[in-house]
Amino acid sequence: MSSRFERLEAHTVFEGAIFDVCQGRFRHEDGDEVTRQWVAHPGSVAMVAHDDEHVWLVRQPREATGDPDLLELPAGKLDEEGEAPLDCARRELAEEIGKAAEHWEHLKTFLTSAGMTDERCHIFLATGLRDAPGHAIESERIDIERHPLAELGAAIAATTDAKTLIGLMLLRERLRG
Amino acid sequence: MSSRFERLEAHTVFEGAIFDVCQGRFRHEDGDEVTRQWVAHPGSVAMVAHDDEHVWLVRQPREATGDPDLLELPAGKLDEEGEAPLDCARRELAEEIGKAAEHWEHLKTFLTSAGMTDERCHIFLATGLRDAPGHAIESERIDIERHPLAELGAAIAATTDAKTLIGLMLLRERLRG
Repeated sequence: MSSRFERLEAHTVFEGAIFDVCQGRFRHEDGDEVTRQWVAHPGSVAMVAHDDEHVWLVRQPREATGDPDLLELPAGKLDEEGEAPLDCARRELAEEIGKAAEHWEHLKTFLTSAGMTDERCHIFLATGLRDAPGHAIESERIDIERHPLAELGAAIAATTDAKTLIGLMLLRERLRG
Repeated sequence: MSSRFERLEAHTVFEGAIFDVCQGRFRHEDGDEVTRQWVAHPGSVAMVAHDDEHVWLVRQPREATGDPDLLELPAGKLDEEGEAPLDCARRELAEEIGKAAEHWEHLKTFLTSAGMTDERCHIFLATGLRDAPGHAIESERIDIERHPLAELGAAIAATTDAKTLIGLMLLRERLRG
């Protein structure tokens, strides 16, 4: 049965460059205690940035997964302690595709892999786009691709990236009204 | 720019209960070398099991994320070395919801968090359901919930789990024809 639980203790068992590994003990409401190990992640953001005709996507190499040019939403990691997801989204939109957005709307927050990590990815809709001069595109291996909104199905079929699948399918649903 | 790359070396820096952490060096086609750290995961499966009226979902506590009753597709981890995803899906469908399926179809394979882990989740459509006696439901804290296909939107709105969002949105698209 589903169950409320309390965390008895947790500690870091591995300290990494972009994530840590934690281990903890939890007590369920029936008294059972369990040990869990998980990837402690600061969280991430992804932006569905579009105008009346296009949505902005990026391609970049993902060394860990073996993909030379994974098709993704512009995205990033919550870097600083306490950075608000929307602030991170604004920063990453400028850094990754050189854009600012007039209108921002929270679309969905999801767990990337609930059995393994506490990573929450916050997806935002960004519209009213304009160039954000003064912001360089910092990452060196990112290709920017505009995809026609009329062909969202093709982009959905072409990507294998979770945040991108979720963001584009939610966008398709909205555009249908 | 997106870039092909070769892996120069990789080694385990943390050995965990359900995943390891690896670190490796990669050389891009322009000669640049980068170091990456990632969660090495055996992969997972999730099953969109439905009949003409309902889709089978589960609720379970996810200690690492703090959710007492996360709404999810039945799912599981590729446990044994070399286990085929479809074999794992058959096994997990019986274990989690006590069902066997006559028809199986691969729906999508996606990366749960491409910047952080090599985990690939394979989603299968399972139809022609029947009880699978002789299989006990092994996990002790799983609630099974049938959701009406006519109200898929409510289930999509109610979950924050990546595989479940992707599987249910792909199902909704199919049912629309």
